[in-house]
Amino acid sequence: MALPDPPYYAVIFTAQQSDDTDGYAETAARMEELAAQQPGYLGFEAARGADGLGIAVSYWRTEDDIRGWKRHIEHAAARDQGRKRWYSSYKLRVAKVERSYEFGD
Amino acid sequence: MALPDPPYYAVIFTAQQSDDTDGYAETAARMEELAAQQPGYLGFEAARGADGLGIAVSYWRTEDDIRGWKRHIEHAAARDQGRKRWYSSYKLRVAKVERSYEFGD
Repeated sequence: MALPDPPYYAVIFTAQQSDDTDGYAETAARMEELAAQQPGYLGFEAARGADGLGIAVSYWRTEDDIRGWKRHIEHAAARDQGRKRWYSSYKLRVAKVERSYEFGD
Repeated sequence: MALPDPPYYAVIFTAQQSDDTDGYAETAARMEELAAQQPGYLGFEAARGADGLGIAVSYWRTEDDIRGWKRHIEHAAARDQGRKRWYSSYKLRVAKVERSYEFGD
């Protein structure tokens, strides 16, 4: 995933999944697709371990872009479902990326 | 994982594992243990998916604390091994956490 040079913003979402996964995969895929259509979207990376701990990081040009995505009505509905059903807990951190390095491809 | 209120720093490490995993798990566990002993260390979260993409986020009080850990001699040796053997590519981003939210436990 190629990103512009810093500064830009990262939303670090760390979540523990509950036992109820019904409908989760479809909604997660839809949110990934929808986020990519929003103004200021730069990219997305996610990994989930066997223990149910998942980390998803989305990258955005500005804090306003993050607020816009937060307010998106379909995203808000998905968030409600997440709290009611799919996640036992989560943490979300908004961070300004100041430096980046890469190795390999 | 309880963290202090922002601001603090996050190092977002996104890596694609190579086919050579010999010695990787031991070194990763040792690095996690060693990082936790460094000044300014606040916490660590990691997840690796079945596709070999892993995301690890470590949290630190200041940028200087991050630099100190980067220069640690045992960490530098592990990084060399990572480039030679365990990772086909990785990206590392240093970001200042400005806001955080949480849900659940």
